[in-house]
Amino acid sequence: MSTDKYEKGLLKLEEISPGAADRTKQSLEDIAPDMVRYLMEFVFGEISSRPGLDMRAREITAVASLAALGTAPNQLKVHIKGALNCGCTREEIVEVLMQVLVYAGFPAALTGLRLAKEVFGELDVSS
Amino acid sequence: MSTDKYEKGLLKLEEISPGAADRTKQSLEDIAPDMVRYLMEFVFGEISSRPGLDMRAREITAVASLAALGTAPNQLKVHIKGALNCGCTREEIVEVLMQVLVYAGFPAALTGLRLAKEVFGELDVSS
Amino acid sequence: MSTDKYEKGLLKLEEISPGAADRTKQSLEDIAPDMVRYLMEFVFGEISSRPGLDMRAREITAVASLAALGTAPNQLKVHIKGALNCGCTREEIVEVLMQVLVYAGFPAALTGLRLAKEVFGELDVSS
Amino acid sequence: MSTDKYEKGLLKLEEISPGAADRTKQSLEDIAPDMVRYLMEFVFGEISSRPGLDMRAREITAVASLAALGTAPNQLKVHIKGALNCGCTREEIVEVLMQVLVYAGFPAALTGLRLAKEVFGELDVSS
Amino acid sequence: MSTDKYEKGLLKLEEISPGAADRTKQSLEDIAPDMVRYLMEFVFGEISSRPGLDMRAREITAVASLAALGTAPNQLKVHIKGALNCGCTREEIVEVLMQVLVYAGFPAALTGLRLAKEVFGELDVSS
Amino acid sequence: MSTDKYEKGLLKLEEISPGAADRTKQSLEDIAPDMVRYLMEFVFGEISSRPGLDMRAREITAVASLAALGTAPNQLKVHIKGALNCGCTREEIVEVLMQVLVYAGFPAALTGLRLAKEVFGELDVSS
Repeated sequence: MSTDKYEKGLLKLEEISPGAADRTKQSLEDIAPDMVRYLMEFVFGEISSRPGLDMRAREITAVASLAALGTAPNQLKVHIKGALNCGCTREEIVEVLMQVLVYAGFPAALTGLRLAKEVFGELDVSS
Repeated sequence: MSTDKYEKGLLKLEEISPGAADRTKQSLEDIAPDMVRYLMEFVFGEISSRPGLDMRAREITAVASLAALGTAPNQLKVHIKGALNCGCTREEIVEVLMQVLVYAGFPAALTGLRLAKEVFGELDVSS
Repeated sequence: MSTDKYEKGLLKLEEISPGAADRTKQSLEDIAPDMVRYLMEFVFGEISSRPGLDMRAREITAVASLAALGTAPNQLKVHIKGALNCGCTREEIVEVLMQVLVYAGFPAALTGLRLAKEVFGELDVSS
Repeated sequence: MSTDKYEKGLLKLEEISPGAADRTKQSLEDIAPDMVRYLMEFVFGEISSRPGLDMRAREITAVASLAALGTAPNQLKVHIKGALNCGCTREEIVEVLMQVLVYAGFPAALTGLRLAKEVFGELDVSS
Repeated sequence: MSTDKYEKGLLKLEEISPGAADRTKQSLEDIAPDMVRYLMEFVFGEISSRPGLDMRAREITAVASLAALGTAPNQLKVHIKGALNCGCTREEIVEVLMQVLVYAGFPAALTGLRLAKEVFGELDVSS
Repeated sequence: MSTDKYEKGLLKLEEISPGAADRTKQSLEDIAPDMVRYLMEFVFGEISSRPGLDMRAREITAVASLAALGTAPNQLKVHIKGALNCGCTREEIVEVLMQVLVYAGFPAALTGLRLAKEVFGELDVSS
């Protein structure tokens, strides 16, 4: 991995979630600084920057995976915002969560919808 | 629920996975015939037929959810085929599974890739 | 699906969890109104209203499933109350959670017991 | 733990799944003989032998937990048979699995139904 | 099970997590007193007291299992403290969580690191 | 990432699981060649090569995580072998799986023990 990947990852994360890079660095720098590097270089600089799938579909993948697993509500909120930033409409995010109910059950979808509602409300307040 | 929903669901499932409706009916009709009805009327006739999200994105949602959960390999294969039938390229499916590794770990992604390879191989043989 | 199923579902949910229908509608009506309809018509009007299994056993199924999965604590509380409303004793609910430890481990059972204790305490205060 | 608990557990397991104790001993005795003891003394001699919940409800708890988790198909089959041996009808087991779809999604329920069908078929052949 | 196992378990839990036995008893004694007994006699008096694996490796197993599952944050914190009490360094715990990202994904590891940071902070304040 | 990391990862994987690199390359090179690179450079060249935790503890982490999740039996077998190659005894692996039963339930531990038995048997035959 390299400085180039790190910079590429920073830009990609800024596209998905403006301001998230700083928050991530602050929360991890004293306990696991290399994790910041892995997130920038590998997750955002490498995986999320791959050609072959548009960012909207990548963020739908993130929302669907995290809603189905149901174990990381804060990260699901980050990617609901990320999906909006990458071109999804609010309606499309609701539909992704509706579709998740088929594979992971109603509680997973209902929790996803509650978190989506929180995200939409936060965006309405801050706009 | 109604006959209309059932017919709508049959058509939708035929679009996602030609022939799957017959196989589903055969496997379930003696043990849980109403499950066939729920799949046609509710899953395919109602949820998958909703406007607001294109079928390609719905099948990406299915592949991401099932790959992240890792508990239903046969259904994941059905939806890998379904994603291809709804306009995804093979490369895009591989990228969805690459993206899943971020949220669900490498084993989930590697199992998904192995199943995708099986699906692609079956399609090559049958074509 | 139909108005009849919706009304049947409302009554069934009222039997399981009095007042829950109104809370569900309020929380979902602005973000996903059709989800309210799916819960009433499909979950409560269709699945939970099926003959062939008494409501006490259906609520034991709900408590066991949700405690084993461990991802939806609020819904587990709803169904612990629901099991009580459908004829389970508090002791029986504790025993269901004891049995869950065999299949899902001690933390799943301990979380279930903590939530059951919250529910029992809320009922004692409100009675 | 004691010899009494072990004998109590053996009898309880024989009630749930005749012949299972011998198969369990054979498969575990060379790699983890104490696990046999834990299963007999703790799982069957202690937990499953507790008063306060009838065996039918305990086996419904087992089927629901294992179907929702989706990671132990062989053990799910053992407890589908166990539920039948403890007084559940085939229809009731199908209904438990139908109810599980609400909390864990359609693939979990469909896999459960496929395994139930295998169990019912094995019982028809051996009877 | 016996008084000896209970006493052995109490001592083992005191070694892993000083004070935890009293808190556990208080939270469970009115709802499920036998669960206290199972934790002392079976979990700590039997399983955690087995020879054949040192306590440091047992606590690494606990941290890895709980971080991978992602459903019991409070118990994960108990075992992060437990791992420190059993000879792990803070750096080693961070590395266990880094390694978990491979098998369970980045969100599982990030949640684990956040909880580890909370534990380390609480220890710094109380020391 | 760089050729150095790739070579470092190859050596690390050879230490954990001799021959696995070739099998991994063969199975992935036509469908997702970059995944081979990520496994060598990131998983084995970066994460598993980090200082701060010995390889024995890293493989215990792998076995515990994979046994608790229960969704990747083949990878669990690879890491049971890996743990042996990194200094664990067979007894220690059995004890890790015994400890996992506390956090993930008996079926997870029993499946882990069955897979360990398969690995031990394969090693006995090939030696």
